[in-house]
Amino acid sequence: MLQFSRKNFFQIKNDIKSNDIKELIKKSNFIEEKIKSNFELSEISSLDNLRNHSIIFLEEDIKESLYNIDDIIIVTNKLNIFENKNYQNTIFVKNLNEAYNNIINFMYIHEDCLDYVDEFDLLNNSYISKSAFVHNSSKIFNNCVIGRGVEIGKNCIIKNNVVIKNSIIKDNVTICDNTSIGTTGFGFDFKNRGSSNLNPQIGIVIIDNNVHIGSSCTIDRGKIDYTYIGKNSMIDNLVHIAHNVHIGDNACIAAQTGISGSVIIGDNVTIGGQVGFAGHINIGQNVVIAAKSGVTKNINDNSVVAGFPAIDINKWKRNVIKGRKNGHQ
Amino acid sequence: MLQFSRKNFFQIKNDIKSNDIKELIKKSNFIEEKIKSNFELSEISSLDNLRNHSIIFLEEDIKESLYNIDDIIIVTNKLNIFENKNYQNTIFVKNLNEAYNNIINFMYIHEDCLDYVDEFDLLNNSYISKSAFVHNSSKIFNNCVIGRGVEIGKNCIIKNNVVIKNSIIKDNVTICDNTSIGTTGFGFDFKNRGSSNLNPQIGIVIIDNNVHIGSSCTIDRGKIDYTYIGKNSMIDNLVHIAHNVHIGDNACIAAQTGISGSVIIGDNVTIGGQVGFAGHINIGQNVVIAAKSGVTKNINDNSVVAGFPAIDINKWKRNVIKGRKNGHQ
Amino acid sequence: MLQFSRKNFFQIKNDIKSNDIKELIKKSNFIEEKIKSNFELSEISSLDNLRNHSIIFLEEDIKESLYNIDDIIIVTNKLNIFENKNYQNTIFVKNLNEAYNNIINFMYIHEDCLDYVDEFDLLNNSYISKSAFVHNSSKIFNNCVIGRGVEIGKNCIIKNNVVIKNSIIKDNVTICDNTSIGTTGFGFDFKNRGSSNLNPQIGIVIIDNNVHIGSSCTIDRGKIDYTYIGKNSMIDNLVHIAHNVHIGDNACIAAQTGISGSVIIGDNVTIGGQVGFAGHINIGQNVVIAAKSGVTKNINDNSVVAGFPAIDINKWKRNVIKGRKNGHQ
Repeated sequence: MLQFSRKNFFQIKNDIKSNDIKELIKKSNFIEEKIKSNFELSEISSLDNLRNHSIIFLEEDIKESLYNIDDIIIVTNKLNIFENKNYQNTIFVKNLNEAYNNIINFMYIHEDCLDYVDEFDLLNNSYISKSAFVHNSSKIFNNCVIGRGVEIGKNCIIKNNVVIKNSIIKDNVTICDNTSIGTTGFGFDFKNRGSSNLNPQIGIVIIDNNVHIGSSCTIDRGKIDYTYIGKNSMIDNLVHIAHNVHIGDNACIAAQTGISGSVIIGDNVTIGGQVGFAGHINIGQNVVIAAKSGVTKNINDNSVVAGFPAIDINKWKRNVIKGRKNGHQ
Repeated sequence: MLQFSRKNFFQIKNDIKSNDIKELIKKSNFIEEKIKSNFELSEISSLDNLRNHSIIFLEEDIKESLYNIDDIIIVTNKLNIFENKNYQNTIFVKNLNEAYNNIINFMYIHEDCLDYVDEFDLLNNSYISKSAFVHNSSKIFNNCVIGRGVEIGKNCIIKNNVVIKNSIIKDNVTICDNTSIGTTGFGFDFKNRGSSNLNPQIGIVIIDNNVHIGSSCTIDRGKIDYTYIGKNSMIDNLVHIAHNVHIGDNACIAAQTGISGSVIIGDNVTIGGQVGFAGHINIGQNVVIAAKSGVTKNINDNSVVAGFPAIDINKWKRNVIKGRKNGHQ
Repeated sequence: MLQFSRKNFFQIKNDIKSNDIKELIKKSNFIEEKIKSNFELSEISSLDNLRNHSIIFLEEDIKESLYNIDDIIIVTNKLNIFENKNYQNTIFVKNLNEAYNNIINFMYIHEDCLDYVDEFDLLNNSYISKSAFVHNSSKIFNNCVIGRGVEIGKNCIIKNNVVIKNSIIKDNVTICDNTSIGTTGFGFDFKNRGSSNLNPQIGIVIIDNNVHIGSSCTIDRGKIDYTYIGKNSMIDNLVHIAHNVHIGDNACIAAQTGISGSVIIGDNVTIGGQVGFAGHINIGQNVVIAAKSGVTKNINDNSVVAGFPAIDINKWKRNVIKGRKNGHQ
């Protein structure tokens, strides 16, 4: 797990202690709590990245690694998690999304808040946050916006009208015109819609060395951790990459493909155009996915798939031929 | 039907009377007219929104409500409409598109005319029309363009490089980077193509309270009336919404979906990514449409559909399984 | 074949002679050469556009027309081409992509190089290269970028936040908001990925008279020659057109369609939304392609196709009906 300093990107609005959390949640959908002491909290954890002195929002099975974290508050809507004897500091709530939204919006300012502000310098016709770092070997074209805390490494080319926020861009990266990086992930409680119910997205995007990203792409930042694009990956135009997606090294992704939230993709994949992915699936290494596929399940290493739902490409071809014969009878 | 003041968005080029219309049309594809008096005309009607002192371009069946409108000129290419005894002021033309284009371009200036101009203030690094209204509680980021007559309500967040024209944005709306709202609809006579034959689009976009719109979306304005997005709707990245589409409250629309012109969608729909819709169809309330579906027909309330052409999702799943068995024989 | 002056768009970095080419290639993947004299080279050829005093990179069958070109250097990775007795000036290399990249990057500066610079005037809130030509009857809205050497003819409307580079735009063309024209094609050696291995794209885009292009489209420039859009063509929003595509006159292309590299499309085609094309195929005249089709093969004149892989639309409809019957048994 790569580490980043969240406060570089998301201004801390309020320092917080465990008792504050209790008070915040009691206002709305609190059921019961078992927090014994009042300790300081400085971070948010995910199951993939547990931190001391943090809060975690938990609705899935518990990993044993959680037992060893100091001063972690577990907010959960699952009774079995709340009643687990291994945890000291647990809060039981009705609506986990609402708890998440209230706590994060109390702790952090992010770009989906009205009180978010940033200060810019106008540099070569682009607005660059005073808190951003752009290596002097890198080139930024016109009408770009480089937001708070963004880091851009060596020898990068950021073309025109590009928006980069909440992101770390490493070396030799090219980002083409009208692309948006570090945008807000599409995360919310399906039962409680509207812009005010959007889950605050306080993660970032990390783009590794030597990546090429085409025009009019959108890459959403992680919800708590990060969206990642591996070294030497090539991404064509109008590609959508949702929050928390991890793409390995040497990917090739053709135009108009969309990758849903939390998809994990191995190294050396080749993905055709207009492919779609269901969320939260794993794609192995060296996988080839034909254009227009709809990938609904995990795909093993070294597979070649096609169709919707995507299956082995040879089976898909036989189905197409057979389907036509049936159609013509 | 919501009402808006067209002249806030589209400058009136020429005041017009019924005799002017006759002259305009006689120049080109006029056949016959039965206009008895010379009266003032101040608006354009559609079948959904009939107005006194207006012009309507008619090729579909007539609604009886039309009989009661004062001083309406009916321009039609259908003999049965022209010969209908209930109408006094009717013009019979060969080519209805050409008549529409000539009359609208005579009456109005719009952004697809060379003589369109607008004056802007540069405010926080964005160009805001002197005739636009932005509530002071709303925030506009960098490199945006807010065009003539646009209204933006309270507590809205308009991110970077966003273009909003010909639109009314209500309260608590978030619009993410590189999105274009109020753009020109893709309307023209299929037999007579080219930019100069585009039908003038003199409607607007209305986005209701608490809507979230992602990055790099395009929402075209109505042709005569408006494109509408209902309260609390959530729209992901790279979504295309064509002219005259109406989307109800609480919609959730995932990335890269495209909604063709004049589609009407009820409340509480959930639409997956990369879905496409044929034009002029109706989607009921509480409908769920699986990712990558191609919706070609009306969908009833409470349906769950998938596939292309989209059908009941359980039938679709059975077809997929059966198709594979056939394929493997 | 239309001609354009490459140096208007791509600055010449180094004048070059045939002996320089030998030296450049010897550094890396050179095998053998048979170049007898040292002559000046001023251009790059393609099989579609052979020029005297030029270099051509060849891996396909040879056309006899090549025999008559003066002072052309053939760089090839095919032994049979190298051994062809008709050629005097031939270089045999292991990796043709690497040879192309090294030679082009030595000869030309392009926007994917760190040493690319351009100088702009700020005109009506848009950055316009000092070397661009915009006819004074044309209108450019806000936050646009018009790059080096671009020519824009009469009566064009370039809306907001549009990026146009490496392009010739003829008369009466409308380009809508947030669209990018002349962007970098997605060309590289699949075995050797990463931004530094991108094939330099030193061609342009030519958009002919009276074309309408929607919002958030991406049109990549040619690799060596040009991407072309014919007269009176209408292109909807979020359409992707890859490098070297040629589209005839009077095309209608609906939203979110993607056209892969080197596809050739005849006159008078109508293409629905969300259609995809395999690369390097030919589509005839008067072809209609239904929405969501995946076109994988050449299509004859006057065909109407649908489905993926796209077939005659009547066969496709029968297959759909038959597939459903099978599914329901």
